[in-house]
Amino acid sequence: MAEHNVTVESTLLALLSDKKYNTLRDILVTMNPSDIAAIFDELEEDRLPLLFRLLPKELAADTFVEMEPEAQELLIRGFSDSELKEVIDEMFVDDAVDIVEEMPANVVRRILAQADPEMRQSINEILRYPENSAGTIMTTEYISLRPSMTVEDAITRIRRTGVDKETIYTCYVTVDRRLVGVTTVKDLLLAKDDGTTIESIMEPNVISVTTHDDQEIVAQMFSKYNFMALPVVDNENRLVGIVTFDDAMDVMEDEATEDIEKMAAITPSDKTYLSMTPVEIWKNRIPWLMLLMVSATFTGMIISHFESALSKMVVLTAFIPMLMDTAGNSGSQASVTIIRGLSLNEIEFRDIFKVIWKEVRVAVLCGLSLAAVCFIKIYLVDNLLLGSFQEVQVSGVSIYLVIGVICATLSVTVLFAKVVGCALPLLAKKLGFDPTVMASPFITTIVDALSLLVYFGIASLCLPL
Amino acid sequence: MAEHNVTVESTLLALLSDKKYNTLRDILVTMNPSDIAAIFDELEEDRLPLLFRLLPKELAADTFVEMEPEAQELLIRGFSDSELKEVIDEMFVDDAVDIVEEMPANVVRRILAQADPEMRQSINEILRYPENSAGTIMTTEYISLRPSMTVEDAITRIRRTGVDKETIYTCYVTVDRRLVGVTTVKDLLLAKDDGTTIESIMEPNVISVTTHDDQEIVAQMFSKYNFMALPVVDNENRLVGIVTFDDAMDVMEDEATEDIEKMAAITPSDKTYLSMTPVEIWKNRIPWLMLLMVSATFTGMIISHFESALSKMVVLTAFIPMLMDTAGNSGSQASVTIIRGLSLNEIEFRDIFKVIWKEVRVAVLCGLSLAAVCFIKIYLVDNLLLGSFQEVQVSGVSIYLVIGVICATLSVTVLFAKVVGCALPLLAKKLGFDPTVMASPFITTIVDALSLLVYFGIASLCLPL
Repeated sequence: MAEHNVTVESTLLALLSDKKYNTLRDILVTMNPSDIAAIFDELEEDRLPLLFRLLPKELAADTFVEMEPEAQELLIRGFSDSELKEVIDEMFVDDAVDIVEEMPANVVRRILAQADPEMRQSINEILRYPENSAGTIMTTEYISLRPSMTVEDAITRIRRTGVDKETIYTCYVTVDRRLVGVTTVKDLLLAKDDGTTIESIMEPNVISVTTHDDQEIVAQMFSKYNFMALPVVDNENRLVGIVTFDDAMDVMEDEATEDIEKMAAITPSDKTYLSMTPVEIWKNRIPWLMLLMVSATFTGMIISHFESALSKMVVLTAFIPMLMDTAGNSGSQASVTIIRGLSLNEIEFRDIFKVIWKEVRVAVLCGLSLAAVCFIKIYLVDNLLLGSFQEVQVSGVSIYLVIGVICATLSVTVLFAKVVGCALPLLAKKLGFDPTVMASPFITTIVDALSLLVYFGIASLCLPL
Repeated sequence: MAEHNVTVESTLLALLSDKKYNTLRDILVTMNPSDIAAIFDELEEDRLPLLFRLLPKELAADTFVEMEPEAQELLIRGFSDSELKEVIDEMFVDDAVDIVEEMPANVVRRILAQADPEMRQSINEILRYPENSAGTIMTTEYISLRPSMTVEDAITRIRRTGVDKETIYTCYVTVDRRLVGVTTVKDLLLAKDDGTTIESIMEPNVISVTTHDDQEIVAQMFSKYNFMALPVVDNENRLVGIVTFDDAMDVMEDEATEDIEKMAAITPSDKTYLSMTPVEIWKNRIPWLMLLMVSATFTGMIISHFESALSKMVVLTAFIPMLMDTAGNSGSQASVTIIRGLSLNEIEFRDIFKVIWKEVRVAVLCGLSLAAVCFIKIYLVDNLLLGSFQEVQVSGVSIYLVIGVICATLSVTVLFAKVVGCALPLLAKKLGFDPTVMASPFITTIVDALSLLVYFGIASLCLPL
């Protein structure tokens, strides 16, 4: 894709230098707005407005919507008022809102001043909903029908008003603005008789969301029901907008990114990596690093406490990183699986005992197989090859016993790690916390401390420390 | 959602016990197939076929498609041949393929035997495409038009053949099965004159995928272009099927889950957590745990190598977990951000120097702020409160120097971790490996070794070890 764009880009720039504007326009109109936007985003400041002005009105608006905020701002600042008005008039309300949300205040004022009064009112209304709510991602342009209309009336209405609507395929049936049914263009076209009333073909059990529902719920409903559009109602079941599947896809992608970032101990951000400054990235990463660093005080305390025991058999120190990392990895395998299951609604709190029992069995299998391999590896590599156990042999303690202590610790900590890893996200969810932040780094810290305690506990019991 | 289902479920079961079949049917027909499926999945074996048979034909097929494979198999085994045929006849080809892919061979044979010849051929063709290719997720039922048709012809054709198509809204224009254009029902309905030819309103620059393209590419195109459906062509540009947005959404969700699992060192699986046996889960988790455990041999070797130095200043051991964990967390923050950026096509290999330079600046900010806080924390907590540095004070070495060594190590390892964390996924991508498996656990192992080397290196230089 990218390589392809590079070639097209150089062709376009060459044509621009040669002032072959007609040829340029001929090429641009064959292209998809997303592809044009990708090229425009990379252009130098002085070329962008020139090329943009070559686009026909509708394509210009569609391309503008797909561009990066930085390039959009640049263009808006260069637009005359009438140019700005032309672009805004061609936009759907939800796209206009997305742009307004990204722009600085003085640009927003210009946009609102140029928008027609109806559009301005819609933008302002949508901006008033809580962040990440269904209200902020909906569009207010949809097809509404009355129950008493015939199929023919409905098709006529769609033909008359459809051009401005983001989707015409799902039509909402309202009485006094209250949502009473839903029907589709497919049902209208396939209806046997043009005189059939909407009331008789509509689906009266409409699944909807309210303006204040979180966008994550909206995305989950799309993935569950395979809707093309979902109606958004207010508290009195009055239809105020619709969310279309393409916006739901964006939300799904954003929510997955957010989950992934939280699992890696990063505060999520709406901006893309390349558009963030180092200070912004630092701000998103440092709080968790600090918290996790300070909480590692506990592991330090545990090691300090067993310092004298450790100094009697220093070889034990060499296996601390292996034990902690294996326990950490085991724990995050469990936590990440459960967190993703919770996000996709595949797992719920009431499954907690089923989940723990499953993880216990998995942990026993993992613990035993890891311990067996670890025993052989330590005996062959660390003992025979590297000679790490010479000190132990000198002291007269059986090296099998020492390796046994390490492997027993491994099995027990894997069990603890898996149980903690699966239970914590479920408990967090039940208590109303975000289960995602319970992932790897947080669980690693707990599991680190646990594995050291188990290690020194078993070692103190079995070895002469 | 779940609580709501529980209530409906108990109502339905009560009605079933009372044999109030008419009331049951009246309730079921008002419900969405996904919701019915969620309830049916939880039913006991003997109740399920009874309730399922109450559903009208079309709703039965729609519900069947949404059910879990276990419940589907149970139902198929209980179906008579004619019941099975009825359900299959109502299904879309891509849904039938999904079911066939999950069923054991003897059930598949029964399904294929009952499918009508055209459906059977389509299923067999789709099954022949490589796993996770566009071919396996497409459906072969779409609306095709000829360029010479008028708008009126086209609408008539849609009305006649649309009932069996998964989507009627995007129509593909073909000549000798070759894809030459695309148009939409919206364009047809809004065309000013019913006599306009399709050729004059169709979009001739059609974006398509080929049958062998990976489903990930398909999902990326949907999220880029906001399509409702995407045509799938063979090597000679002949139209063989379409992928609809709902299937693309499922792919997006699956791909995100797969990325998350790989980042947590889990081999991805198509099955849900609750439907997997402990042995299956163990198989997906153990290879990475083994690999990472064995590779921790290096950290062990480094510690063994510095054993005598460590025994001269045992307090240094207590900070090993903190240093390793902070470096590991810093590294995975960087790697996870880059991996997600690569998945979403926001970052490419050619950005590598931009990325490394950004991470260097972020690392300097993170390293300095962590070191400052760490210095204060160690001085106040470990030194004054816990007295961990008594041994150092006795030996006559400045405790500020020892704390300085720890904090300098912290800054340097954070820098290394961030650079390794951002560069490795990009290099993996360039070399044709999967960047996702470069995530946290793998990078943790490298960074662990690096941080120990830096720690002992700086300590040997500055302290009398």
